[in-house]
Amino acid sequence: MQHLTGTAATLYDEIQGLPIVSPHGHCAPEWFAADDPFPDPATLLVVPDHYVFRMLYSQGVSLADLGVGTPGKGADPRQIFRLFARHWPLFLGTPSRFWMSYVLTQTLGIETPLSEETADEIYDRIAEKLVDPAFRPRALFDQFGIEVLATTDGALDDLSHHQAITNSTWTGRVVPTFRPDNVLDPSDPDFLKNLGRLAMHTGEDVSSFDGFLAALRARRAFFKAMGATATDHAIEVIHTAWLEDPERVYQRLRKGMGSETDARAFYGHMLIEMAQMSVEDGLVMQIHGGSRRNTNAAVMDQFGRDKGADIPIAVDWVRGLEALLNRVGNTPDFTLILFTLDETTYARELAPMAGHWPCLRIGPPWWFHDSAAGIARYFDQVVETAGYWNLAGFNDDTRAFLSIPARHDMWRRGVALHLEQQVARGVFGLADAREIAPLLAVDLARDTYRLTT
Amino acid sequence: MQHLTGTAATLYDEIQGLPIVSPHGHCAPEWFAADDPFPDPATLLVVPDHYVFRMLYSQGVSLADLGVGTPGKGADPRQIFRLFARHWPLFLGTPSRFWMSYVLTQTLGIETPLSEETADEIYDRIAEKLVDPAFRPRALFDQFGIEVLATTDGALDDLSHHQAITNSTWTGRVVPTFRPDNVLDPSDPDFLKNLGRLAMHTGEDVSSFDGFLAALRARRAFFKAMGATATDHAIEVIHTAWLEDPERVYQRLRKGMGSETDARAFYGHMLIEMAQMSVEDGLVMQIHGGSRRNTNAAVMDQFGRDKGADIPIAVDWVRGLEALLNRVGNTPDFTLILFTLDETTYARELAPMAGHWPCLRIGPPWWFHDSAAGIARYFDQVVETAGYWNLAGFNDDTRAFLSIPARHDMWRRGVALHLEQQVARGVFGLADAREIAPLLAVDLARDTYRLTT
Amino acid sequence: MQHLTGTAATLYDEIQGLPIVSPHGHCAPEWFAADDPFPDPATLLVVPDHYVFRMLYSQGVSLADLGVGTPGKGADPRQIFRLFARHWPLFLGTPSRFWMSYVLTQTLGIETPLSEETADEIYDRIAEKLVDPAFRPRALFDQFGIEVLATTDGALDDLSHHQAITNSTWTGRVVPTFRPDNVLDPSDPDFLKNLGRLAMHTGEDVSSFDGFLAALRARRAFFKAMGATATDHAIEVIHTAWLEDPERVYQRLRKGMGSETDARAFYGHMLIEMAQMSVEDGLVMQIHGGSRRNTNAAVMDQFGRDKGADIPIAVDWVRGLEALLNRVGNTPDFTLILFTLDETTYARELAPMAGHWPCLRIGPPWWFHDSAAGIARYFDQVVETAGYWNLAGFNDDTRAFLSIPARHDMWRRGVALHLEQQVARGVFGLADAREIAPLLAVDLARDTYRLTT
Repeated sequence: MQHLTGTAATLYDEIQGLPIVSPHGHCAPEWFAADDPFPDPATLLVVPDHYVFRMLYSQGVSLADLGVGTPGKGADPRQIFRLFARHWPLFLGTPSRFWMSYVLTQTLGIETPLSEETADEIYDRIAEKLVDPAFRPRALFDQFGIEVLATTDGALDDLSHHQAITNSTWTGRVVPTFRPDNVLDPSDPDFLKNLGRLAMHTGEDVSSFDGFLAALRARRAFFKAMGATATDHAIEVIHTAWLEDPERVYQRLRKGMGSETDARAFYGHMLIEMAQMSVEDGLVMQIHGGSRRNTNAAVMDQFGRDKGADIPIAVDWVRGLEALLNRVGNTPDFTLILFTLDETTYARELAPMAGHWPCLRIGPPWWFHDSAAGIARYFDQVVETAGYWNLAGFNDDTRAFLSIPARHDMWRRGVALHLEQQVARGVFGLADAREIAPLLAVDLARDTYRLTT
Repeated sequence: MQHLTGTAATLYDEIQGLPIVSPHGHCAPEWFAADDPFPDPATLLVVPDHYVFRMLYSQGVSLADLGVGTPGKGADPRQIFRLFARHWPLFLGTPSRFWMSYVLTQTLGIETPLSEETADEIYDRIAEKLVDPAFRPRALFDQFGIEVLATTDGALDDLSHHQAITNSTWTGRVVPTFRPDNVLDPSDPDFLKNLGRLAMHTGEDVSSFDGFLAALRARRAFFKAMGATATDHAIEVIHTAWLEDPERVYQRLRKGMGSETDARAFYGHMLIEMAQMSVEDGLVMQIHGGSRRNTNAAVMDQFGRDKGADIPIAVDWVRGLEALLNRVGNTPDFTLILFTLDETTYARELAPMAGHWPCLRIGPPWWFHDSAAGIARYFDQVVETAGYWNLAGFNDDTRAFLSIPARHDMWRRGVALHLEQQVARGVFGLADAREIAPLLAVDLARDTYRLTT
Repeated sequence: MQHLTGTAATLYDEIQGLPIVSPHGHCAPEWFAADDPFPDPATLLVVPDHYVFRMLYSQGVSLADLGVGTPGKGADPRQIFRLFARHWPLFLGTPSRFWMSYVLTQTLGIETPLSEETADEIYDRIAEKLVDPAFRPRALFDQFGIEVLATTDGALDDLSHHQAITNSTWTGRVVPTFRPDNVLDPSDPDFLKNLGRLAMHTGEDVSSFDGFLAALRARRAFFKAMGATATDHAIEVIHTAWLEDPERVYQRLRKGMGSETDARAFYGHMLIEMAQMSVEDGLVMQIHGGSRRNTNAAVMDQFGRDKGADIPIAVDWVRGLEALLNRVGNTPDFTLILFTLDETTYARELAPMAGHWPCLRIGPPWWFHDSAAGIARYFDQVVETAGYWNLAGFNDDTRAFLSIPARHDMWRRGVALHLEQQVARGVFGLADAREIAPLLAVDLARDTYRLTT
């Protein structure tokens, strides 16, 4: 746990108990729809956490032994937990260790330090908790003080779990996010199949480009009606360009006759169409850029997607977004949030861009950079040019539900440390710092994502 | 204002009162030629400051309402100032806030904090000052302790304002800088027209490449005679390459028949010609690289150039300058100063290059990086490889005349903080720090730009 | 010398006296084979140190006057030393100053500060030491507490000096490293000649690709028999790709008829072959990437290679290594250590990659970044994602033998400062820090390079 003293402690005290606004993440809505107990400690804390199993894999631990993917199906949860506990020192210095320690001590009330020797004892104590109704998803959601939680959902999702939550008596707010990449990106292996499903879902005739656009509008409207306030895109290489005749390219792609150039051009065009639809319907647009996915082919083949081999690459936001911004970037009320894994773009590109374009907000430190030092570098590199009001506040961006309070806590400590430093350097006084702290902790996220109740 | 204590305060005290050497910037020479009072607080402090209006624009304020460009012609200065004051909190954490606060308190003697409520009062108090002879350009120049101020002037400028200053009884030193990009870069929309004007200005026959070179030499000689000690280039993508037959490319371009490839090749060749002329005439060469200009087409169309939409891009100094350096980089007495907006090149490219090539000096943190944290990152990343003597000292690079003392003050505080840290870490002792402090504050700038009187 | 107090001093005290493991560097094995006295102070400390003469050259000192290369043959050592001493202040703030001061005070026992005035006195005192048997190479090696020292040797080297060391009664461990670039990279001007020499050395028929591979295997086996535990590659632009028919490309290249594309493809293929051979024979593979060599053609022509004009460029490790990693990256017991001069890849690429692939380890801060601030940036940017166990410990990577203790000392101080900060921030406690300190100082290097005795 990061120590805070003096001004940082004062500032932290004022924001640590604020509600959690979680406008972007990957929790499964079915958890809150079904409200079933979580199965066991390993399945809850180890198996789905790519931060955890990637580190173990990097040191020679087998993914199958960790219960990952199809080859891991038969693994014994207790053995998995032992394996994790034995390698616990590997996480020294990483945010995973902070998150996991927070979950163990703050959420699960376990003070015994984790080690190979204590693995079984801790496993048992967690297992006990999981059958306690206070540790079911909805109860934890309430206990965590979550004001609103956004999930991330494919364009073809029927949002039945969100519907079930809405229909239930539970008052927790869980909203979907529209992530349409698999119907926009022709290089997706299921693109053609997905077009068919899109037609089916919407009743639109997607044999024309206009029909395709109408289908997307219909899905956006459905998501919005279900509570969505935002869309999201995960893009490896940022590219936007307006096509004069998208229909022609669409027809080639729809018939499976498009080239790679067509695919790239079409996706680059569709991002602008999406931005234009955001101008129409008010959904906030998000771009998560620069992650090269599934770079380990063997792991992908055996264990599937999202298995720790997604690696950041350098990004060119300036030229990549030029076409999109020049089409809609000056439009009132359009909001586009950019997330980067390439920290070199904080000061060079994102802060100057967000410090000019009315639509842009800089997303918080993402993924590998959602860490104590990553947060410090972020503030150091974005604030002087973008100020505070061009930031999008915090996202936990996690599928590890139990870690949500830990992640917001790390951010809030980082906010307190940053503001303490600003005060110490004379950049501004404590009064200003006390106004900025809750802004960074909660308000900017709520406002940017239009999640005000 | 950045707090300084202990060693940093000691070091700062010794350099804060040193004269200001301003070897690169964008003040208008007519201010000092005419010595008219500045018109009003908004026109002085808000309207021309792209740091200020870009931030306001990013938060939805209309540029026209801020008096910017042709659409802003009719805006009422008092209303502009109110608009600025109302949004003053947006600048928390930015260097603009530091500069503006310094101008208000130190230069204009206004202690009332700026806010929507105090806007009118402060406006009136500034307006009063501006009619006071002590706040005319020449008086301020003298009061600021400016030893020399360089302006930046197009190759076709007649330097009549500089002539008027020289002819006046005022002893302030204002020197021009030769910025010839609009007669070197064939992609400039006015390139052909400018060639005609170049011929007219010099009497040279620019129908041959040799005549073109002769005309450039003539302009350089004229600038030098008028006091210039340096040239300057603003280049988006750094590229130099020596052409074996520049005449042929020149002829195509001169007839408006050159391709984009020709234009790029020609400009890349001309930079080397400029470097060679610097070897001949001793003018120090500057390259400001990697700013993509006017990226917001709508703002460019309505409000013109330099309206806050210039965004940095990644730069490759190593391959970009290889041809130039291999032609003149080992020549005695040639000086080339490099400015980057891509901080990743500080440690990776610029420091190793400046730590080898006799001609190279690293320019100070530029533009978005001319900030407290930017200065700290600069020292952190350049000194260990380049040392101190391969740096070019400080530039304020501003068109905001009143902010010049503030900017030099921020640098001097940054110097003091850096040197304090070096002493604390045992890198060197206080005696060395006391020698390096004035070097960084004034001497390196004066020496590198050959501005010694 | 960096000051350490409190926790840092405690941690440093525990590791400062540990043996030196030097798994990668450029000392000449003949020093230890012959054990002749070093010739004179200038030839020992100034002439071979490209960190030193590049800085002097950047400030206008002639390389010939510094005794560098053929033009420097006749230079008087005492004059060289005077020239260096006169420019000693240029090194303020650089690691060279730290290293040189350490050598003068700790190794040579000279407390008189270096300056133009003291140059002769210090020169004489060093010269006296050099004739003392205690300052011969083997005695210094022992006195420095070097457990093992790896040299870097071309694939065609006969390793006769290593053989002589082995045959001697001296017990110092000096092992070779297999650096085969000049027989792998067809763009090497001597590539064809080197193929011939490779055939001669091994007795293999290199007229077929299989024969070529057999010859490489033979050389690797020879190096391994002579004590080598690692290979090394110095590559400007990282590129790997598996060729389906390498024989065809090889035949074109072998006949001198290959294109540049062939050369690049072949080298990119051969890196994968080398990785596969490492899987077979257990030699640890190293890649030093992203240095553009000999960028100053005039210096190269007159003074030769490695004369301070090697400049880093941006690197793409992700796409560059994708083919290699997908072929062998999941193989048990394969180790590949990556060294970068592009610090932007620490957090963006190397830490995520090393935090996933079982084979990868991140090399320590290299060359320009082997400095106090460079070490701090390294820890700040790699640990949170890669942890500590995916690091390769420290390399001094030097040809300046006397500076080895100084370089390890700087690293150990940097380790202590980093760990102190971790403890202060509450990332982990002192007990963990005390376990990680010797790991970073010695154990990771020994283990990663398989140098355990």
